[in-house]
Amino acid sequence: MSAYFHRVVYYETDQMGIVHHSNYIRWFEEARDAYVREHGIDYRRIEANGILMPVTDLKCDYKSAAKYWDLAAITVCVLSFNGVRLRYGYEVRNAETGALVVTGETGHCFIDAGTRRPLILKKYMPDYAGILLELLAQKDGDRA
Amino acid sequence: MSAYFHRVVYYETDQMGIVHHSNYIRWFEEARDAYVREHGIDYRRIEANGILMPVTDLKCDYKSAAKYWDLAAITVCVLSFNGVRLRYGYEVRNAETGALVVTGETGHCFIDAGTRRPLILKKYMPDYAGILLELLAQKDGDRA
Amino acid sequence: MSAYFHRVVYYETDQMGIVHHSNYIRWFEEARDAYVREHGIDYRRIEANGILMPVTDLKCDYKSAAKYWDLAAITVCVLSFNGVRLRYGYEVRNAETGALVVTGETGHCFIDAGTRRPLILKKYMPDYAGILLELLAQKDGDRA
Amino acid sequence: MSAYFHRVVYYETDQMGIVHHSNYIRWFEEARDAYVREHGIDYRRIEANGILMPVTDLKCDYKSAAKYWDLAAITVCVLSFNGVRLRYGYEVRNAETGALVVTGETGHCFIDAGTRRPLILKKYMPDYAGILLELLAQKDGDRA
Repeated sequence: MSAYFHRVVYYETDQMGIVHHSNYIRWFEEARDAYVREHGIDYRRIEANGILMPVTDLKCDYKSAAKYWDLAAITVCVLSFNGVRLRYGYEVRNAETGALVVTGETGHCFIDAGTRRPLILKKYMPDYAGILLELLAQKDGDRA
Repeated sequence: MSAYFHRVVYYETDQMGIVHHSNYIRWFEEARDAYVREHGIDYRRIEANGILMPVTDLKCDYKSAAKYWDLAAITVCVLSFNGVRLRYGYEVRNAETGALVVTGETGHCFIDAGTRRPLILKKYMPDYAGILLELLAQKDGDRA
Repeated sequence: MSAYFHRVVYYETDQMGIVHHSNYIRWFEEARDAYVREHGIDYRRIEANGILMPVTDLKCDYKSAAKYWDLAAITVCVLSFNGVRLRYGYEVRNAETGALVVTGETGHCFIDAGTRRPLILKKYMPDYAGILLELLAQKDGDRA
Repeated sequence: MSAYFHRVVYYETDQMGIVHHSNYIRWFEEARDAYVREHGIDYRRIEANGILMPVTDLKCDYKSAAKYWDLAAITVCVLSFNGVRLRYGYEVRNAETGALVVTGETGHCFIDAGTRRPLILKKYMPDYAGILLELLAQKDGDRA
């Protein structure tokens, strides 16, 4: 699985001299976008189809601290996908030392942009549902 | 003119131990919303009328630094308004010491949410155009 | 328990027309600061004593969406505190409708700013350790 | 001059469906860091020498809007540098269409981290002062 790289910017630091914990949540999103883009998903097409993908929950464990100017390597995987709910896992490492910085997970669902009610992705975008299932299989392969 | 108060939060600091300069731009927006709300403008009503109010330019002068836990007092005024373009001015002070922290200005225009073309606010929302003109007059009164 | 109020600002919205999920993490911090401040803790004094309080983990469940201009009411409680580790719980509600928006938790530890090693708060700041224990008791009282 | 690329992330959009104006200020910083890094300056070394480089002023003109998923190309140049004060210019373009999105400038000074008083960079870091002068000359060359 290829990593997404993020260079720490000054505005992400806080007066402890480390990256403020809230920023990693945003790195997850950057890395998630890059990950699906690499596998052929254009999130704008999902929205153009009237489908939104809100975050339903997240968690984050802080293992060590990223610092200004550090290069972070973020890997993403699909932890679960049942057509209605999707779950991503993340690992942030220092790209130079390999040290684990943060791990996390985000849950997502698919909803109709108009009614805001849940929907089954496969019914509207079978191609993307297929890609997500492949990414899930790949994850299980990694684990095996 | 009454001030809007903002308490500095940890995530706004950077590793210099001061508020990162990009955050003041967001305080301007908080204070601007509070200012117009106090004078009877509900910005959501503008959008519900299909009108957007993008920022066209801004400037910001940093005089001293706000720090974590500081209470900042932000005052806003209407610098100019000709029906099509609107300009706000801002002053951020330390609420306890009165020290000047930042001054700034933002320019705005009114556009049609659909066509994204400029429009004259008075034609669509004469009540709000009237309030803005009063706020402008008030500003000139302050100056006199 | 009194609530901390946060008015949603435009920059917190995303193109789904709701508050982007990453912002609630920052509201937790605003509310946490206000909560301890109200109970006599000045976080700057902790840092002046050479003690940092990094976040060790967090979780967040999104129940409904806050929108632009909404007034959010955030309540905070101390979920656990053993002298070395501290855990806060949060509840974000729409202040007007009472609707639950987000719940969350953050874990914190106390470390020496120089060595970055964990320490026991009571040894260095018995007054603040006492306040946190009282807030914890209060929480258990609420539950009883 | 090579460009720094930034892919627009969802959290940067607002409910107008465009990048919120405050984010470009942060892109300037990302691009500025990348620009000086490419020319041999490690900003961490400046801070390790007890020198801070706060922003003294900025301005920003919004020409068009970046959108979610867009790739932005940001170019940076040194507009002026007299040893005590440094001024950068920025241009943000859509990397695919070439459309101009935002232009901006930031002013910086060099201060002693301890006394917070201005200092002359050349006295403490003649190598970096030299690089900045070369970047300035290069800019004037571009213009000629």
